Amino acid sequence: MCRWIAYRGETKALEHYVTEPSHSLISQSIQALESTVSVNGDGFGLGWYGEHPEPGLYREVRPAWSDENLRYLCRHLHSHLFFAHVRAATGTPITRPNCHPFACGRWMFMHNGFIGSWNRLRRQVEALIPDELYPARVGTTDSEAIFLAIMGAGIEDPVGATEVTLARLTSFVNHDGAADRLRFTAALANGSDLYAFRYAVNDRANTLYYRESDEAIVVVSEPLDSDHSNWTSVPESHVLIAKAGEKARVVPFLCERREAAE
Amino acid sequence: MCRWIAYRGETKALEHYVTEPSHSLISQSIQALESTVSVNGDGFGLGWYGEHPEPGLYREVRPAWSDENLRYLCRHLHSHLFFAHVRAATGTPITRPNCHPFACGRWMFMHNGFIGSWNRLRRQVEALIPDELYPARVGTTDSEAIFLAIMGAGIEDPVGATEVTLARLTSFVNHDGAADRLRFTAALANGSDLYAFRYAVNDRANTLYYRESDEAIVVVSEPLDSDHSNWTSVPESHVLIAKAGEKARVVPFLCERREAAE
Amino acid sequence: MCRWIAYRGETKALEHYVTEPSHSLISQSIQALESTVSVNGDGFGLGWYGEHPEPGLYREVRPAWSDENLRYLCRHLHSHLFFAHVRAATGTPITRPNCHPFACGRWMFMHNGFIGSWNRLRRQVEALIPDELYPARVGTTDSEAIFLAIMGAGIEDPVGATEVTLARLTSFVNHDGAADRLRFTAALANGSDLYAFRYAVNDRANTLYYRESDEAIVVVSEPLDSDHSNWTSVPESHVLIAKAGEKARVVPFLCERREAAE
Amino acid sequence: MCRWIAYRGETKALEHYVTEPSHSLISQSIQALESTVSVNGDGFGLGWYGEHPEPGLYREVRPAWSDENLRYLCRHLHSHLFFAHVRAATGTPITRPNCHPFACGRWMFMHNGFIGSWNRLRRQVEALIPDELYPARVGTTDSEAIFLAIMGAGIEDPVGATEVTLARLTSFVNHDGAADRLRFTAALANGSDLYAFRYAVNDRANTLYYRESDEAIVVVSEPLDSDHSNWTSVPESHVLIAKAGEKARVVPFLCERREAAE
Repeated sequence: MCRWIAYRGETKALEHYVTEPSHSLISQSIQALESTVSVNGDGFGLGWYGEHPEPGLYREVRPAWSDENLRYLCRHLHSHLFFAHVRAATGTPITRPNCHPFACGRWMFMHNGFIGSWNRLRRQVEALIPDELYPARVGTTDSEAIFLAIMGAGIEDPVGATEVTLARLTSFVNHDGAADRLRFTAALANGSDLYAFRYAVNDRANTLYYRESDEAIVVVSEPLDSDHSNWTSVPESHVLIAKAGEKARVVPFLCERREAAE
Repeated sequence: MCRWIAYRGETKALEHYVTEPSHSLISQSIQALESTVSVNGDGFGLGWYGEHPEPGLYREVRPAWSDENLRYLCRHLHSHLFFAHVRAATGTPITRPNCHPFACGRWMFMHNGFIGSWNRLRRQVEALIPDELYPARVGTTDSEAIFLAIMGAGIEDPVGATEVTLARLTSFVNHDGAADRLRFTAALANGSDLYAFRYAVNDRANTLYYRESDEAIVVVSEPLDSDHSNWTSVPESHVLIAKAGEKARVVPFLCERREAAE
Repeated sequence: MCRWIAYRGETKALEHYVTEPSHSLISQSIQALESTVSVNGDGFGLGWYGEHPEPGLYREVRPAWSDENLRYLCRHLHSHLFFAHVRAATGTPITRPNCHPFACGRWMFMHNGFIGSWNRLRRQVEALIPDELYPARVGTTDSEAIFLAIMGAGIEDPVGATEVTLARLTSFVNHDGAADRLRFTAALANGSDLYAFRYAVNDRANTLYYRESDEAIVVVSEPLDSDHSNWTSVPESHVLIAKAGEKARVVPFLCERREAAE
Repeated sequence: MCRWIAYRGETKALEHYVTEPSHSLISQSIQALESTVSVNGDGFGLGWYGEHPEPGLYREVRPAWSDENLRYLCRHLHSHLFFAHVRAATGTPITRPNCHPFACGRWMFMHNGFIGSWNRLRRQVEALIPDELYPARVGTTDSEAIFLAIMGAGIEDPVGATEVTLARLTSFVNHDGAADRLRFTAALANGSDLYAFRYAVNDRANTLYYRESDEAIVVVSEPLDSDHSNWTSVPESHVLIAKAGEKARVVPFLCERREAAE
């Protein structure tokens, strides 16, 4: 159960979203409100796009709330598309490679959720990663494995690749009537377009909100301020698609596949 | 606002007190109950006496709840007198030398509290440390400065040295009618005897409890289990004295000095 | 290219071997002599057996030479069988789970060496780990994968299980005429018996020495002092077997298998 | 004994100087050539100026050579004036606040050197820090204390303030015929101007080189490549003054004061 924020819009200092708001991500690291765990102190990460086609990452195992480097970076880094994430680990070790976001080439990914019985399903999920991407598996989380599986499932169509991957994960957790839980609330970006997914199997999906203006779209686990009327909830089994130069759309995710399977 | 535990008694593995109880210190690191802050995730420390006359220390800047080294050490270290501490920082950096406990020769100290306007009073408090002990000031906390001031005030009489030091601190916070707050709930030990203090100026004192049996005495910031009838509260302005081979006594601390001053 | 020390004998404080000798492991962390890299500053670890049947571990990502916790622990921990290891990473991240030693039940393992083209062979090596041990793979090193493969190859016969595993690795690196390099200089223990292996394929083996007395046997990557006459080199393709209550034996390792294969 | 680099010139990505050159600062962290210690693995730091008047800082206790965050930041951060520093500690703890550079308002400072008997002189040096700057003393190094003393000695004339401060330090180390050693090779900047000092008392000064072009000036502890003809050594007891829009000048430092004193 983590908390995250994704931003796409005019180039801005990260501090306006990560550290300054009344219920900023840093506040959520020590006291989240809409989560089953309130403390997200198991490491954190920033990922941002700048002039270089590949994103930059800053990831640390210490809690976000006390990291002075994070405050300096949020003040000095400017970006048109960035992610920030505070982690509440669900079993895998507290290491930098296990902190979100993850990067692979031009793509960046972060996640709030879990695969119910990871110990039972880990090998199956890792087997979805193609050989040429397996060296990019530098950590041990379910989240990184899902990301690399999506990367290998035809990332030129990112929603399609994510649907293919999540359909497979859905069949894994439901195999032999197991009905393990799966929660997947994730963000994916390539430097210009941003995608945010809200999905779950055998469970409630984690919360996901967004706020769009002429200048920017901000997607969050929970609102950054107390004025909830500013924020729109993304429904379960939907994906928010925020392409550069277009207004964001929220469309069904995996519904047809699920209906076809039912 | 930190949480701590001190133990003196039969030699035991630390895990029986630090990691295993239902509301163990590790549980308190992520959710304390009797404190103004519930998260104590700004580092932690162990200090213990063994065959060597000087105590051993293990201090880390990461939260206690996710530190796998801590679990191994609590299982494998046995001691007749040990301290454990989880920190919620009040302004000074999250570094190992700023984590409790502190050691100086045979003596060990840990603290839950603060000096109200540390920035104004820091130089005065540091000036209480004698020159020969000033190289032992390796961190920047008020707690370490108080400890070294006590060490320099005649540590052969530990309660007297602490009274002299706290009387000075009391006059500092009250100087020129300032009425700054001071909270001092601390443990001090020399390898055989254990002292625990509860004191405050211009404020409520932080909580302090103990439980004594034939085998051991345990002194804590808050009870390790929900059966509060097992635990006795140390009154404000009192010190608990648990000398080796004697039953613990709780006696007034600084009262005469304060009465004399009033 | 790492440096390590293994000890089995009378119960002693670790400091006599880890921190005090003129060319102690701590000295070797900042300046090793018999290695292609002189700095072993990519984390370190201690593993030791005490009263509990499973070993304790202390692993850290910082260099050993500046870790004050390590000095305290080496002074206060006593053990009849312990490992200490300083790491020079060969490509995998600097995380605690990637630091040696590794533990699995009663067994403990550490390694100095590498598998030549780990990116090509990683999936094959990980496939040697049985399903029931795969949850114990908490890091990403080749060393941990080899250990868990050995654990799964019949650990009740530790030399046999290691031979089976290394024979497989040898065939992997030589597959299709690849002739990738493999170096394996490792220690394995179960709380009473100690095994140390020196082996390589398509390369020189890393150095390995031991010193035996009536009280103890010490096995090291390089001698702890300048008096090299005290130390005996373990030949390549040999294993040192130091069972509790017996004098150590050095016997050929994998020779028959290799001869049969040639 | 540390290694550092300072840059002032056209806005560039830090990687061109910090991570990419053949003998980059990162290379020097694991193997410096012109120093009494070859390993600078006791933490590191970046400091840079951007749009904000105050500099940004990234400081870490791990060695620079293995820090993946550092590589991302050096690729993504662009600056017209930045510092980078790798530390070899001379006695004070390995903590982030003890890593260079240090910042105070618009000013930034880093240092390679030491005050001979710091334990004896520490209180005298700290007493040079004015009360209003003492809260900025968040670490325990001699370097930070010297910086804050300079800040308090009239920083509007930075060379003068440094001369006043170093003259005092010189008298401290020479007091009562002590002849303690002092080495001071430091960089100071305010966002537009850069100053680099090379000075020592009772000892050889640490090396200092620079390379100036139409676009930029780079000042370093040791050359970043093997073509030493590109680099000019700053003589002992001199200061390099590189003001925005002017060609750099190298002028005597503290000579008159010393001559007057002799």
